[in-house]
Amino acid sequence: MSIYDQHLDKNPANYQQLTPIWHLERAAKVFPDTVAIIHGKQQTTYESYYARSRQLASALTKIGICKGDTVSVLLANTPPMLEAHYGVPMMGAILHSINTRIDAATLAFQLDHAESKIFFVDREYAEIAKEALLIAKVNPMVIDYDDLEFPQTGELLGETDYETFIKDGDPEFAWSPPENEWDSISLNYTSGTTGNPKGVVNHHRGAALMGYSNVISGDMGKHHVYLWTLPMFHANGWCFPWSVPIQAGTHVCLRWVRADAIYDAIVENKVTHLCGAPIVMAILLNAPDDEKRKIERNVNFITAAAPPPEAVLAGMADAGFTVTHVYGLTETYGPAVVNEWNSDWDKLDASTRVAKKARQGVRYLGLEGLTVRDPETMEIVPSDAKTIGEIMFQGNIVMKGYLKNPNATDEAFAGGWFHSGDLAVMHPDGYIQIRDRSKDIIISGGENISSIEVEDTLYKHAAVQAAAVVGKPDEKWGETPCAFVELKPGATATEEEIITWCRDNLAHYKCPRNVVFIELPKTSTGKIQKFKLRGPAKEL
Amino acid sequence: MSIYDQHLDKNPANYQQLTPIWHLERAAKVFPDTVAIIHGKQQTTYESYYARSRQLASALTKIGICKGDTVSVLLANTPPMLEAHYGVPMMGAILHSINTRIDAATLAFQLDHAESKIFFVDREYAEIAKEALLIAKVNPMVIDYDDLEFPQTGELLGETDYETFIKDGDPEFAWSPPENEWDSISLNYTSGTTGNPKGVVNHHRGAALMGYSNVISGDMGKHHVYLWTLPMFHANGWCFPWSVPIQAGTHVCLRWVRADAIYDAIVENKVTHLCGAPIVMAILLNAPDDEKRKIERNVNFITAAAPPPEAVLAGMADAGFTVTHVYGLTETYGPAVVNEWNSDWDKLDASTRVAKKARQGVRYLGLEGLTVRDPETMEIVPSDAKTIGEIMFQGNIVMKGYLKNPNATDEAFAGGWFHSGDLAVMHPDGYIQIRDRSKDIIISGGENISSIEVEDTLYKHAAVQAAAVVGKPDEKWGETPCAFVELKPGATATEEEIITWCRDNLAHYKCPRNVVFIELPKTSTGKIQKFKLRGPAKEL
Repeated sequence: MSIYDQHLDKNPANYQQLTPIWHLERAAKVFPDTVAIIHGKQQTTYESYYARSRQLASALTKIGICKGDTVSVLLANTPPMLEAHYGVPMMGAILHSINTRIDAATLAFQLDHAESKIFFVDREYAEIAKEALLIAKVNPMVIDYDDLEFPQTGELLGETDYETFIKDGDPEFAWSPPENEWDSISLNYTSGTTGNPKGVVNHHRGAALMGYSNVISGDMGKHHVYLWTLPMFHANGWCFPWSVPIQAGTHVCLRWVRADAIYDAIVENKVTHLCGAPIVMAILLNAPDDEKRKIERNVNFITAAAPPPEAVLAGMADAGFTVTHVYGLTETYGPAVVNEWNSDWDKLDASTRVAKKARQGVRYLGLEGLTVRDPETMEIVPSDAKTIGEIMFQGNIVMKGYLKNPNATDEAFAGGWFHSGDLAVMHPDGYIQIRDRSKDIIISGGENISSIEVEDTLYKHAAVQAAAVVGKPDEKWGETPCAFVELKPGATATEEEIITWCRDNLAHYKCPRNVVFIELPKTSTGKIQKFKLRGPAKEL
Repeated sequence: MSIYDQHLDKNPANYQQLTPIWHLERAAKVFPDTVAIIHGKQQTTYESYYARSRQLASALTKIGICKGDTVSVLLANTPPMLEAHYGVPMMGAILHSINTRIDAATLAFQLDHAESKIFFVDREYAEIAKEALLIAKVNPMVIDYDDLEFPQTGELLGETDYETFIKDGDPEFAWSPPENEWDSISLNYTSGTTGNPKGVVNHHRGAALMGYSNVISGDMGKHHVYLWTLPMFHANGWCFPWSVPIQAGTHVCLRWVRADAIYDAIVENKVTHLCGAPIVMAILLNAPDDEKRKIERNVNFITAAAPPPEAVLAGMADAGFTVTHVYGLTETYGPAVVNEWNSDWDKLDASTRVAKKARQGVRYLGLEGLTVRDPETMEIVPSDAKTIGEIMFQGNIVMKGYLKNPNATDEAFAGGWFHSGDLAVMHPDGYIQIRDRSKDIIISGGENISSIEVEDTLYKHAAVQAAAVVGKPDEKWGETPCAFVELKPGATATEEEIITWCRDNLAHYKCPRNVVFIELPKTSTGKIQKFKLRGPAKEL
């Protein structure tokens, strides 16, 4: 036995459970008068944000919500949503944030599966909530959020409204850290493309560490100003509600993602950071001139999902934004990979720079292991930028598992690594680049075809606004690539022209055999819904 | 049982032990060619820093050093010291950093107490090391560090030198994270003023979290440049060896703290951050003009110990430095409290601003609890800026305990809080301000007198360079304050003048009865050694 194993044990003085609640507590004590939240004309200081979160925790306790219960919220990017990120974990319950644009059946499924005890509903979504509650087996207490800054006309469904509810709570509520930092903090359902949604459960430890990771990676200085273009229901807004208070930054709420509101907030509230899918960049750049505002100081835009195309990056730079490209999943608390920029690359020519920017990158600070492996053998693929494998993660910002779904959990963690379901190559310099979702890979004549590679080629065609490529069943080849293309307003192109373009730029076997011109189906966050194209492809 | 307690367990995919080693691993992979260490003309990239640390870990393993063994180092702020901060924990041993200016007997005591297995010695300190090895009971393997950039003439004591030693190590050594993040990482002896030094043991978890805390609190951006004016043997250089790689910053080594070398490094290596005791500021400001250099960009100077006097702060600002005042102990990994600056205070008049700056402040990010309590009753003192209590800490950056010293450990953690031994008041805004060390408080006629308050008054006298006040035994009063004063070069003052000055500015019972003009005894890091003045005070 080593001398270091003797009488050097944990005790309350030298060991505390990690939780992001400490971040808010500190901001409230050190910067009580700093504005924590801006919502329309309403401003909330850190002292008040902390007090209101404690009121929420206290009010939940008073009506009998217990540690380990689920608190469901169907809220926009508004103050109650920010308060729920602290008030709920303060009393040991789990915050279940719901996509505000899902259908009633899915919403009912989530409420039932999560065994929801209480349900906060923004009036804007009253109709869908009402319908879901009729279908659901559970019967949660319903609390309305009636936003006085942006009045909504939806029906009031609940027994009381949010302000009345928390008024009963004690602003001095004596919260305590979780008994164990491994305790659950949040539940987010993934919009699975097949079968029922899976409930991703995350913990206090990961949320606290993600708080630090975002601040350091995003270069978020003291009193930064963060604009809520990213939905907070989306992987808890990538944990930014747990990051901003670390530096006593200001949250700027945003009920709707519209160009004029974003430009106004950036200029008037001196926004320094915002996040969003590429669609948000498109909204900003394609806004009519009278909605645009001149941005005086550089603004950091963190984007995920598809790598930003060259024209968008150039446009964003001209408009005053620095774009950082990240990648992650709900299962990784948001960003788990970052396109860490090397200043040497500034000297490269534009297309090489864009190629560097298009890569997903390297592990985020809070993640310990990032590899690309053969999912069958679990062998690491060579760093040759060619061999495709599955992206796998190990680390403290990987979920606890899927709620009440041991099989899916075990499958996701097979071999001691979290299987992302995304296929990628590893570059010689250790940066990964996504080639496809597992289910999006096209296998033609035994050859793997990355649908993303084909799409990238399509995007480079002058007439193409957006493109999605899926496999079309084929007796001889198994599958062949089928392209769905959305043309730029006013642009024209024929199927033949597009196929010829691909043949000039791709190996022949990778070229689409069919090209369909349509408006592509997209999710509320702007992601193209490829799965909706598989049926039509089959029937061509 | 909650649904969240079922089948959502830890596994390697979602739980990894925290350790600062990840910080270096990431920097080496993402920024392999970035300069990690500058030492004279020698530059080490991150790829090489990581490889050499792994070589050190491997070489230690090869000669039989095991997990839980002590590796002692008597090194200046040089590359081997930075490598030891990773190479030693990579193979599970504990890094014991030794103050390079202690006497042979204390050094021998430390080697024995730590049961040291191997001992790295810089040639500069060969003489004292040799003497200590003659006294010590242990017989560690000795490795010399022969610094070719700054050649030293000391005797070579060991079996081999550092470069030869690590050459045997494998640069691909497969390190693994600690089995438990609670495992020990470092051992640092406090320079106790009474009795034997106590060995402070810290752990991987705290070192990793302190890494993040320093980066965020110090506003250390990507590729910052950190100058080593603070000795790395001092609480592991406040954990900055574990912070700098997080942002792929550059360490600039410094063998000796001299004004010309500091100014040259700042200008030529574009230093952005440095730390040090107030003495370092004095060295910088009092340097002859031909050693000073014009600093073009703002440099962050983080200082601990005594709050910086007004004149020094003004001088530092003029010279191009922003000064941040922190407070902590070896037992708290370095800074645990920071004078978090509120920009509203910029508008205050100079003396009020200095009064704000003089306060120790609020909890550092990595610390969870900071209170001022009555050590007898453990009650929190009122936040009235008057009532004196003991500063107490709770959190993840508090030590595991004192090595082989269960009594001292239990005493330090009595009541579930770490007792700092420092006496302070709590201001109404939650900032603490030190009034004294427990043992430095003077009790006169039953009244507590803060020796620091008396010293502050003395410092404001135009002729006073430095001052220390201790209790002098007194039959009637128990104790009376006795001042030891160092005058500015060329300045004069009489005992009477000084006492009159105090009477004009302090309650009478707090005024010194005796004033002695001497050159004050100081530690190697510039701290005044008050304990050396108690004997002389008694004999007056």
